[in-house]
Amino acid sequence: MAAKLYTEKHEVPYYECDVTNYMTPAMLLNVIILISEKQNLDLGLGADFMEQFGLGWVVIQYDISIDRLPEINETISISTQATSYNRFFAFREFWMKDSDGKELVHVRSTWVTMNKSSRKMVTIPAAALEPYDSEPVKRLPRLKRPTKVEADDDVIEQKYQVRYYDIDGNGHVNNAHYLEWFTDVLPMDFLATHQPTAIYLRFENEVQYGHMIDSIVTKPIEVDGELTTNHQILVGDAVSATATIKWRNHD
Amino acid sequence: MAAKLYTEKHEVPYYECDVTNYMTPAMLLNVIILISEKQNLDLGLGADFMEQFGLGWVVIQYDISIDRLPEINETISISTQATSYNRFFAFREFWMKDSDGKELVHVRSTWVTMNKSSRKMVTIPAAALEPYDSEPVKRLPRLKRPTKVEADDDVIEQKYQVRYYDIDGNGHVNNAHYLEWFTDVLPMDFLATHQPTAIYLRFENEVQYGHMIDSIVTKPIEVDGELTTNHQILVGDAVSATATIKWRNHD
Repeated sequence: MAAKLYTEKHEVPYYECDVTNYMTPAMLLNVIILISEKQNLDLGLGADFMEQFGLGWVVIQYDISIDRLPEINETISISTQATSYNRFFAFREFWMKDSDGKELVHVRSTWVTMNKSSRKMVTIPAAALEPYDSEPVKRLPRLKRPTKVEADDDVIEQKYQVRYYDIDGNGHVNNAHYLEWFTDVLPMDFLATHQPTAIYLRFENEVQYGHMIDSIVTKPIEVDGELTTNHQILVGDAVSATATIKWRNHD
Repeated sequence: MAAKLYTEKHEVPYYECDVTNYMTPAMLLNVIILISEKQNLDLGLGADFMEQFGLGWVVIQYDISIDRLPEINETISISTQATSYNRFFAFREFWMKDSDGKELVHVRSTWVTMNKSSRKMVTIPAAALEPYDSEPVKRLPRLKRPTKVEADDDVIEQKYQVRYYDIDGNGHVNNAHYLEWFTDVLPMDFLATHQPTAIYLRFENEVQYGHMIDSIVTKPIEVDGELTTNHQILVGDAVSATATIKWRNHD
C-alpha cells in the first residue's frame, strides 16, 4: 500500500516571487512545509501530537529537482507523502504541478525526530508514522549531498545578521532563510538571469537570533556540463548548512 | 454612490507570522496590496492598463489601526475600496476582519501616479479611477503623519544591506521591507511581548538594491499614555521613510 497523498492548490502571490516574477527558492520551502503541516493536522498528527512524546520533526536534508519555478499569479497544486521510514529516518516527498498536471518541482527530504529538551535525535515513535501508511524500509533512498567548498575554491563571501523575523513560532530560525543567505551572495545580474534546476541542501547546526553568519559561495563554474555553485554557511568556524545548486539560463 | 468594495478571504500561513505566531506588520502590507491588485485586475485596471499611460501607482503614506494582528492558521477576510480622489492624490482603504466579521485592522492610504520614465508624480488620469466609483473630492482625509526623530532623542540604530530578495517584479524595493527594517532594530524581548496598535508610515525617497540603509528608532517611551516609537530610515543623509508606531503589551 502506497503512503497517503495529501494535495492542496496554491496561488502564487507577488510577494512570494523575486524580481523575475518566479517563486523564490526560500518560498518554495515555506509552501511545501505548510502542505506537510496540513497533512499532519488532517491525520491528527500536528505539533500537539508530537508534543506528547516531547518530540518535534526536524528536516536534515533536501534534494530538490526543478523543471521550472512556479510563476507569479499561477495556481499550482502541491502534493506530499511520507513515503518511507526506518528507526531513525523518515523520507518525505513533495511535488508541485502546473494546472495541466505537468510536474514543475520534485522534492525529496529526510527527517528525524528530535527530543525537544535534550535537542538530541531519537528513534521515531511508530504511532507518529502509521497513520501516513509510510512503508517501513531497511535503507532510505539516498539523497544527493552538497559538494564541499574547498580551501582553494574561488569564492564570494558575505556576512548576514540573523534577524527577529527569521525566527519562527518554535523559536528557531525558519529553514527557508538559509536559502536566502546561500543565494543573496551571488550578483543580482546572475540571479536575475538564472534559475536553479537542482538544489541539494543539508542542515548541520542550528543558527540562532543575533548570530552573525558567514555565507560563502563558489563562483559559478561548469561541472559535468552544468553551471554549479557550492555553498556553505558558517557561524564562527562551525558549519551550519551546506548546499550545491545547479543553474540554467533564464532570460 | 459608495466606491466598489472588493473582498477576499486569506488563510494566514506560519511563514507570514513571527515568533509570537501573529502576522508580521510587513506581511500585513503584502497581503493588502495583493487584494488591491486583485481588485485592479477584476476591473480591468491592472499594471498593463496603467502601462498604456506610462504610469504606475505609488503609495506615499499609510495610517494603520490595529485591534489585533491576524493569527497563525486564521482565515480572515480582507476588503478594499478606492474611496476618493482629487487631481493628484487617491485615498484607498483596507479592512481585515475575523470570521465573526469583527474588524481587526483598518488601513487608510494615500497614493499618487508616477510617470515611469521621469519618476515624477503626475495628475491621475480619470480613466484610472472611474471604474472604482471613487468619489471626487477637494480635500482627501488627513492621515496621521509620523513624528520626527529629533537630534536629542535616545535612539537605537542599525545598518541593513538591501538584498536581492527585497526587490520586487517592478525592480523596486517592496515597501513591506521598510517595516522589517523599522522594527528589527528593537530588542527581541520587546518585539515578542508587544503588538502595534497603530502604524503611521510615510515614504520619502526610494532605496535601491545594494544600498546600505541606516534604521534609527527612538527607545520606547509613553506619549499621551501610549507606548510609542519613532522611526527613520536613511540612505546617507537622505531620509527614505519615517514611521511612528504605538504599542500595547501582548504576552
